[in-house]
Amino acid sequence: MAAWGERLAGVRGVLLDISGVLYDGGEDGGSPIPGSVEAVARLKRSRLKVRFCTNESQKSRGNLVGLLRRLGFDISEGEVTAPAPAASLILKERGLRPHLLVHDGVRSEFDQNDTSNPNCVVIADAGEAFSYQNMNKAFQVLMELENPVLISLGKGRYYKETSGLMLDVGAYTKALEYACGIEAEVVGKPSPEYFRSALKEMAVEAHEAIMIGDDIVGDVGGAQRCGMRALQVRTGKFRPSDERHPEVKADGYVDNLAQAVDLLLQHADK
Amino acid sequence: MAAWGERLAGVRGVLLDISGVLYDGGEDGGSPIPGSVEAVARLKRSRLKVRFCTNESQKSRGNLVGLLRRLGFDISEGEVTAPAPAASLILKERGLRPHLLVHDGVRSEFDQNDTSNPNCVVIADAGEAFSYQNMNKAFQVLMELENPVLISLGKGRYYKETSGLMLDVGAYTKALEYACGIEAEVVGKPSPEYFRSALKEMAVEAHEAIMIGDDIVGDVGGAQRCGMRALQVRTGKFRPSDERHPEVKADGYVDNLAQAVDLLLQHADK
Repeated sequence: MAAWGERLAGVRGVLLDISGVLYDGGEDGGSPIPGSVEAVARLKRSRLKVRFCTNESQKSRGNLVGLLRRLGFDISEGEVTAPAPAASLILKERGLRPHLLVHDGVRSEFDQNDTSNPNCVVIADAGEAFSYQNMNKAFQVLMELENPVLISLGKGRYYKETSGLMLDVGAYTKALEYACGIEAEVVGKPSPEYFRSALKEMAVEAHEAIMIGDDIVGDVGGAQRCGMRALQVRTGKFRPSDERHPEVKADGYVDNLAQAVDLLLQHADK
Repeated sequence: MAAWGERLAGVRGVLLDISGVLYDGGEDGGSPIPGSVEAVARLKRSRLKVRFCTNESQKSRGNLVGLLRRLGFDISEGEVTAPAPAASLILKERGLRPHLLVHDGVRSEFDQNDTSNPNCVVIADAGEAFSYQNMNKAFQVLMELENPVLISLGKGRYYKETSGLMLDVGAYTKALEYACGIEAEVVGKPSPEYFRSALKEMAVEAHEAIMIGDDIVGDVGGAQRCGMRALQVRTGKFRPSDERHPEVKADGYVDNLAQAVDLLLQHADK
C-alpha cells in the first residue's frame, strides 16, 4: 500500500460515521469510543471541513445530537446528514404517504408527512418495534398496492451496541423485499445520492473527501463508489475478516478515529 | 396447452399441499376450503396413491393432523411429510445442536435433539415469536459460530390465513442470511431432497407423480424441478398474477382441489 502521505494527499473534507466511530450505542445511551471526543474536537479546530454522515434511523436528528453532546462531542444538528429528514423531503416531493415501520424515537421527523391512506412503506431501524405484527402490517400494506414502494433508511446488516451486535434495518428490508418480490429504494448510505448530498452540504468535491466508518460495505464501499476515499476504523462493528473483504478494500485501516485524525492532520491538505 | 388427458396420463401418485389447498389456517383453527374434505376422501378411495407434503412448521405433525381431522379430513400422521421431523433427523445425523427459532407449537418435534451449546440455528414459521429479541438472539448465535449453519424449514414468502396474508419463514430466513452473509439450508419445499423423500414414502417415481399446491414457486416450480408434474389451485395464497409468472408455468391451473381431483379421477392412470 502507498504511504499515508500519498493516500491522504489533497483531502479537504472529512465525513464521519457516528455509531461505531464516535460512540457505541446502548440502552443507557451508550459510551464514547476512547479518544473520539478529542479527535472530533481536533478535527474541527483544523482546516479540514467536517460533516457527520449517519444511517442512524432510530432517533431523530435532534435526539441523536443531544445524546452526543451529553457524551462530550462538539456537534450540532446542522452538521449532520441523517436519513429520516432526507426521506421526509423525498416523500413530500413525490406525493408519497408513508406507512411508517419505525422506532417511536424517529417518528417526529415525519410530522410534516401525510400518513393517511398510505401509498408506500418507510422502514427504519425500528429495534423492538420489529414485532411480527408490525412487520406483517407493513407487508400487507405493500401487497395491497398496485406499485408497491418500499423506502429503506439505510440497508445496514447490523450495528454494535455496548451489549453486543444488533440486527439493523437492512435485514428486515430484505425480509419485506423477498416476501413482496420487490426491491427497496435506499435513503442513506450506501446510496450515492445520500453521499452526494453530504458532500454538497460541505461544498467539497468527492475526490477531495474521505469517509471514516466502521462498515466496510456501507461506509467504505459506498463512499468509494462515489469517488471518495475511505478509511475503516477497527471499532464498532469492525471484524478482522473485513480487512480481507472479497470486494471492498479500504484506502486504509486504522485502530480508531483518534488514529485516523492523527494521520489526517499530519498528511491531508498538503 | 395439451388436453387434460395428455397432461395427466400415467399419474399414479398425488402429493397434496395442506395449507391453502385443504384449508386456510386462522386463529380459530381455520376452515376447510369448500369441496376439499370430499375431494381428499374421493382421492383416497381411488387407485391413486396420496401423500400430504407440507411446509407447515408452526405446529407439530400430530397437532396439524389432529386439527385437520377435526375439520373433517381423512388424514393420519403416517401420510404426512413435514419439515420439522425431517430436520430433527438431519440434526441428529450431522451432530448438530440447534438453537430453535420456532413456534412453541412445534418445539416438541425437537425433543430428541440436544439444544445445549448450540452449533446451528433452526428457523421455522415462528409467527408472533419472530420478535426483535428472538431474531437478534438467533443472529448473535450465528455470528459467534466459526462456520454458521442456518437450517430453514421451508422458504415460503407468505401464506394465507382467514384474516389475510401472513409473512412466512422465508422472509425471516432472508433477514438472517443477509445479516450474517450466509445461505440457509432448506428442509422442506422446494428442496429436491424433501420432494424425493415424499416420493420414496409413496413408492412412486417422479414422472408418475403430480403435486397440487397453491404456491407457484415452492410447490409447482419445486416439484417440476424434480421431474414431477404440478397443478396450481386458485385457492389459498394464489394470486391471478401467478398464472403469468415469469419463470414457472404449472402443468395446469384449477379452481380448487375438488376440480383437480375431478380431472385426476377422469384422466390419470390411463
